[in-house]
Amino acid sequence: MSVPPRDPFGWLDDAAEQRRRAGLARTLRPRPADSPLLDLAGNDYLGLSRHPGVTGAAAAAARRWGAGSTGSRLVTGSTALHAELEEALAEFCGFEAALVLSSGYAANLAAVTALTAPGTLLVSDAANHASLIDGCRLSRADTAVVPHADTDAVRKALDAHDRRAVAVSDSVFSVDGDAAPLPALAAACREHGAALLVDDAHGLGVLGDGGRGGPYAAGLAGAYDTVVTVTLSKSLGSQGGAVLGPRRVIEHLLNTARTFIFDTGLAPAATGAALAALRLLRGEPDRPDRVRGVAAELHRRLTGAGLTARAPDAAVVSVRAPSPEAAVRWAADLRTEGIAVGCFRPPSVPDGVSRLRLTARADLDAEQVGRAVEAVIRTAPRGA
Amino acid sequence: MSVPPRDPFGWLDDAAEQRRRAGLARTLRPRPADSPLLDLAGNDYLGLSRHPGVTGAAAAAARRWGAGSTGSRLVTGSTALHAELEEALAEFCGFEAALVLSSGYAANLAAVTALTAPGTLLVSDAANHASLIDGCRLSRADTAVVPHADTDAVRKALDAHDRRAVAVSDSVFSVDGDAAPLPALAAACREHGAALLVDDAHGLGVLGDGGRGGPYAAGLAGAYDTVVTVTLSKSLGSQGGAVLGPRRVIEHLLNTARTFIFDTGLAPAATGAALAALRLLRGEPDRPDRVRGVAAELHRRLTGAGLTARAPDAAVVSVRAPSPEAAVRWAADLRTEGIAVGCFRPPSVPDGVSRLRLTARADLDAEQVGRAVEAVIRTAPRGA
Ligand SMILES: Cc1ncc(COP(=O)(O)O)c(C=O)c1O
Ligand SMILES: Cc1ncc(COP(=O)(O)O)c(C=O)c1O
Repeated sequence: MSVPPRDPFGWLDDAAEQRRRAGLARTLRPRPADSPLLDLAGNDYLGLSRHPGVTGAAAAAARRWGAGSTGSRLVTGSTALHAELEEALAEFCGFEAALVLSSGYAANLAAVTALTAPGTLLVSDAANHASLIDGCRLSRADTAVVPHADTDAVRKALDAHDRRAVAVSDSVFSVDGDAAPLPALAAACREHGAALLVDDAHGLGVLGDGGRGGPYAAGLAGAYDTVVTVTLSKSLGSQGGAVLGPRRVIEHLLNTARTFIFDTGLAPAATGAALAALRLLRGEPDRPDRVRGVAAELHRRLTGAGLTARAPDAAVVSVRAPSPEAAVRWAADLRTEGIAVGCFRPPSVPDGVSRLRLTARADLDAEQVGRAVEAVIRTAPRGA
Repeated sequence: MSVPPRDPFGWLDDAAEQRRRAGLARTLRPRPADSPLLDLAGNDYLGLSRHPGVTGAAAAAARRWGAGSTGSRLVTGSTALHAELEEALAEFCGFEAALVLSSGYAANLAAVTALTAPGTLLVSDAANHASLIDGCRLSRADTAVVPHADTDAVRKALDAHDRRAVAVSDSVFSVDGDAAPLPALAAACREHGAALLVDDAHGLGVLGDGGRGGPYAAGLAGAYDTVVTVTLSKSLGSQGGAVLGPRRVIEHLLNTARTFIFDTGLAPAATGAALAALRLLRGEPDRPDRVRGVAAELHRRLTGAGLTARAPDAAVVSVRAPSPEAAVRWAADLRTEGIAVGCFRPPSVPDGVSRLRLTARADLDAEQVGRAVEAVIRTAPRGA
């Protein structure tokens, strides 16, 4: 491609060079359908993404309803399948109503923007997911970012404000896998008449009775002042997201949320798959126990061997690496050993600490857990 | 649900009451799998969403690859199927490279934010799609909104700025179906060393040789300074979106775009369906002619009967209604006659003019077109 005299993208080459020099250049590594790698990197916590009951439901939905939903949910994009999933999600998680969107990202943008207006105070945990942060940026609210998992800081921010307020938090933080102090957070909000918005992306299917999620476990299911977002792309093994809450909140969202109104409805295959996964989860309420058990065992054995890892509150086990370079090498060595793990380093980590991110799955057997643990220990860098 | 003393969502009831009073309350109307309605409301322009080759590919992909992609495209969420679709899209539309995201909305947020930085000037058409507008809001660039389809205004805005600049436009505007003046816009950008970002959501599959899209038709395919976004949810009958452009732009996006990095990869079923649809389109290059032919006929016959409709540049035929109430009643009457049409009214229309939005489809036959035309004319309100 010949480079023109006034090149609007010349700066991209400098940015790429900087990434290369810092060892931060990313590449895509498309996987084959039958990857030989043992997967401890994905978010398919319940192992449902490849469950024949789930893939079969995806296939059946595509054939019966079409490959796409053909329009906005407000025009032609709502099928009876969406309505069925919404009812099932609301019922399972204990909320009045639910609204399905095309991704968890879109659900978070919708919830944050629709529940705020100019002058609203958004109190946002410093470790919140990018989609919540983007929601804060898109909203016209004033955002106060508070230190991670610090309910006193939330209370202080709410104290200083006498208009509408919404506190926003992940239920389980995606990088470190730690749980938010939801009961305390909810109490602080209630004292102040503030709403609480919880992103339960990593809680649904893992926490709470039968996997009903972090807010359910915290006694917040159906609360008049609590709104929950979930993704269909992790425990439910599919794609999409949803907002759960009081019916008037859901009504408001479908009337005002731009990422709902101006986006094509979730594809039937993804909708049907999520519904089938939810039904499987309902019928096998011990799957969440199994994934938490695997996470606990990973943690016990890794720390037993001297590695530094956070005691997992859900399915994610975060193992500390001594440096970004060591983390990258560690993950690469594990890949050579046939094991896929996540590798987080700046700028994707809020605290600048690089780590491996291991995810437990309900369908990992003892041999696989043992193999993973031994490999992680064997390849650990000095200083880990 | 008992209402508490300090109710953080009390304001929602006032908002709902205002909507009701203004006649603007929206409801979801889930459709059955075999809707008896003749669909002139969806965006399935080529009729591929229910094509057995497309739904079969969706089903096969779900079974082979799983119901979900299980993670970010940078972790476990990239499959060989994504890579194949990216290659096919880039090749078909004439660009070096492509990146698939979970929706067209996400693709637009990614492209606008990743191509701008503080100090960049974004010049945005007043009628651009909500996702481009949200991209401008999310970016830290300075945004100049220029009057609709006004290249002189774009030139003036670029004149007044001596740093990086990106002009942003739909190729075909979603409400009125009119085409942007892409060649003139591209010339203005090139004069100023500015980049051009085109959202070809409604152009792909409809405009250009064999449906290669609006930018292709304007001679911009493969241009060093042009980036294009597309959705997989309209002509390709599936779900998802993509960014097409020079390889260095795509590399930059996958390293920096938050709606790519922090979002689960597109589900295999949607990916496989879009790929199959693209291959069908390639093999049947007259489908785009058919949809444009149907649109032209709708326009000819409706205006022939005295209705006010814009001559369509692509698949969308916009018919003027005398008032929001009349538009709603007209659409409802048509529904009673078995015909689904879109109905746009404030605040979803930039100019405050309510209209019916009819979409042509390549697979509408003469009888169906005739039935639709007669019903639209028969139910037209006084003053239309
Ligand atoms: C905490 C959290 N929220 C939201 C999302 C976005 O969900 P999705 O990938 O379904 O768009 C993710 C991950 O992708 C996440 O980790
Ligand atoms: C012009 C335009 N751009 C982007 C989008 C968003 O695409 P998607 O629905 O695939 O997210 C749409 C419609 O939905 C659109 O009309």
